Amino acid sequence: MAGMTAHPEPAAAPAAVAAVLEALGPLLGERLTTHKAVREQHGHDESWHSPALPDAVCFAQTADEVAAILRCCNAHGVPVLAYGVGTSIEGQVIAERGGLCVDLSRMDAIRAVRPDDMDATVEAGVTRTALNAHLRDTGLFFSVDPGADASLGGMASTRASGTNTVRYGTVRDNVLSLTAVMPDGTVVRTGGRARKSAAGYDLTHLLIGAEGTLGIITELTVRLHGLPEAVCAATVVFADVAGAVDAVIASIQHGLPMARIELLDELSMQAVNRHNGLAHAEKPTLFLEFHGSAAAVEAQVATMGELCREFGGSDFAWATRAEERSALWAARHAAAYASKQLRPGRDFHATDICVPISRLAEAIEAAQADVAELGLTAPLFGHVGDGNFHLVVVLDRHDPAEVAALDTLNARLISRALAVGGTCTGEHGIGVGKRDYLRDEHGAGVDVMRAIKQALDPNGIMNPGKLLPD
Amino acid sequence: MAGMTAHPEPAAAPAAVAAVLEALGPLLGERLTTHKAVREQHGHDESWHSPALPDAVCFAQTADEVAAILRCCNAHGVPVLAYGVGTSIEGQVIAERGGLCVDLSRMDAIRAVRPDDMDATVEAGVTRTALNAHLRDTGLFFSVDPGADASLGGMASTRASGTNTVRYGTVRDNVLSLTAVMPDGTVVRTGGRARKSAAGYDLTHLLIGAEGTLGIITELTVRLHGLPEAVCAATVVFADVAGAVDAVIASIQHGLPMARIELLDELSMQAVNRHNGLAHAEKPTLFLEFHGSAAAVEAQVATMGELCREFGGSDFAWATRAEERSALWAARHAAAYASKQLRPGRDFHATDICVPISRLAEAIEAAQADVAELGLTAPLFGHVGDGNFHLVVVLDRHDPAEVAALDTLNARLISRALAVGGTCTGEHGIGVGKRDYLRDEHGAGVDVMRAIKQALDPNGIMNPGKLLPD
Repeated sequence: MAGMTAHPEPAAAPAAVAAVLEALGPLLGERLTTHKAVREQHGHDESWHSPALPDAVCFAQTADEVAAILRCCNAHGVPVLAYGVGTSIEGQVIAERGGLCVDLSRMDAIRAVRPDDMDATVEAGVTRTALNAHLRDTGLFFSVDPGADASLGGMASTRASGTNTVRYGTVRDNVLSLTAVMPDGTVVRTGGRARKSAAGYDLTHLLIGAEGTLGIITELTVRLHGLPEAVCAATVVFADVAGAVDAVIASIQHGLPMARIELLDELSMQAVNRHNGLAHAEKPTLFLEFHGSAAAVEAQVATMGELCREFGGSDFAWATRAEERSALWAARHAAAYASKQLRPGRDFHATDICVPISRLAEAIEAAQADVAELGLTAPLFGHVGDGNFHLVVVLDRHDPAEVAALDTLNARLISRALAVGGTCTGEHGIGVGKRDYLRDEHGAGVDVMRAIKQALDPNGIMNPGKLLPD
Repeated sequence: MAGMTAHPEPAAAPAAVAAVLEALGPLLGERLTTHKAVREQHGHDESWHSPALPDAVCFAQTADEVAAILRCCNAHGVPVLAYGVGTSIEGQVIAERGGLCVDLSRMDAIRAVRPDDMDATVEAGVTRTALNAHLRDTGLFFSVDPGADASLGGMASTRASGTNTVRYGTVRDNVLSLTAVMPDGTVVRTGGRARKSAAGYDLTHLLIGAEGTLGIITELTVRLHGLPEAVCAATVVFADVAGAVDAVIASIQHGLPMARIELLDELSMQAVNRHNGLAHAEKPTLFLEFHGSAAAVEAQVATMGELCREFGGSDFAWATRAEERSALWAARHAAAYASKQLRPGRDFHATDICVPISRLAEAIEAAQADVAELGLTAPLFGHVGDGNFHLVVVLDRHDPAEVAALDTLNARLISRALAVGGTCTGEHGIGVGKRDYLRDEHGAGVDVMRAIKQALDPNGIMNPGKLLPD
């Protein structure tokens, strides 16, 4: 784990930084700053990884500005980090090697919404709630929901997903095209708006998940989905996690097109009860949501009810009206912050393995056994319909024993996940936190990735120290 | 259009080819051949592009063999072409610069089928019908159906799709992971079996659609879908193409999850009537298929029926039993070959633009006007639910005037498609036929593609002369 290291990385050369600041000053004016407060704000994300400040921060307004910035930084060998909202959780925006942070939050224009084609084109700084608020009267919505109100550029860069991926896919499935600025200042549009294309290498998907190490995404054309005619939410309580997971597996194999399938374990339920003043049963609980026509939702609810009962589910609570559904989902949405409150003032790290669905029950069982053996506090919740779950490990980052226990936990989780064809990260990305696991997962593929990085960013200015191992 | 050029490309150096043959002889024995008949069989695909023979053909049996072959060819600078079944239609397997054709058809093992995870791992030479025959008793199927019984490696390499893409996605959406051999002989596994991952660059999607220019795919892990409980097929006749297309657009915007939405124009219907001895109305006709639970299919059928009537649809024919459905779909499946029979003995070229659905009606209208103006014979059919359609231009390749008319048609089609955010190829790929259009579509993105090609295949041995413009 890189979490506690001192990041003794080579910093950007002060003379080079000075040259960049001087060169970009006339272009950016007051939108280029070295104020410490601004740098501090941009030197961390929502992870427990140690902050590190960029040498300067600028607020870009156009792709052409981003191109000028990259050309300048490339000429001087100064690192460049793209910054949206700062909600990454593997240290993706931390400026370990200093450099210039390019804040894209002012690139927040919604350029076009095309209801007939069910797509929208937005600047990279638009957040998902801003887009959905804009779409309110169209009957359409943007589906990817990682919890945080992230920017769409950031979500694409980290290959984000979230609670309704099981139905609507990850950000990878919902981006039709990107505009990106490459390190040499070239502005590339990676595709069009057709639903499919066989024209050339898939640059869209190469940039999605590249964590800003190949270029900076400045605009996205995304797919929209029709708001369902009917929505029903439900919670179901299980005696043990295994029963809940088996019900999920059965529902996936049954082909039920559920919109959300989330699991909270006992400790998570305790945490949310305490944090939100709720009175849920403190047992493993599935949070479900069904979308479709009224008839389809009714049929899905009936089938899922049967499946849950078959695996020991009980205490069903159903909600169809919007405010009831919100109340029901409040517990799930509070899980991350509620978990932190189990040990106020401490740090937290969310593990993120994802496995084939058939191996999910054993993965969770082994993870919980590890948590018990290692003496960690770690409520479990996650997107079990995808085979993805998180343990929110609440720990004291200054206690080497706790950090070592977390490292052990992560190593075991990942080793077991990879052994069954899973991944070290379902949706949080590599950042600084999982670089040491990339080769375990991809083997020689890492060398191919490195060759691509070297070809597209020969001076290594794009978010150095992230994603690829040294 | 490259179709009629003499391909005056630099051929592989005879001495280098001889060295490769000598070096690989002990490894491959009789599976390495320079027999002219075998070379001729491998020197063309199903396109009208001029054949060109490889210097030799080998039949690989393992990824390790492919690695040894690539290492050897890389060392000697000899071109390498991967060959599956030879059903590509933009000249992807034509050996314009000679070299060694690596036939993967003997790598036809189905390594694993995992019903619980709804995935399968197959060697690259497995064809889609072989896989589906193997899956017969599992209740699952592999969805991608480009018409031809292509190999899965070939389908991935050309980013194939087909008639049920509107519901189940293209090959891009149905491949979880690849094993590929890079030009230096490195064997890479690009991912695992988890439904999502945020770990590193997306090499899976970089290789899908790369047409063998970056590496050779030797194994794929693909998604499977559950066979629907109920299936209903239908044909609906329209007075004009515009009405049919408007009904399709309405159905997409309505969110109807139809499994197939295919259009045949009047000339296509004439061709299939004549070719198959059928008596369909010779008017624009939609071929539809609905998948789901019995109740869901019934609801979809009712809704689509209303939408079709609204746009002038009539003469509905419905079929639910398997043999009735097959009879109904026979016309659609015969469309390509029936079209060729409009002018027996001539060549044919299928155009392949794909546009945002809202622009489909105008794209088809303009295309048909062009066909009339240019005096071409060109029945129209296609996957209109995706915004993708083909004009099967039946022409005499030795008539410069007809070839010029086709070139004009393609240029106009593509220019209009790109102007509305579409693509020059929805599913056939670039190959040799559309290289001149890649920059029109991708602009500076072509330079990024070229940098990736140069990084991963520095000696340019992988399928040279394909995909990227010179």
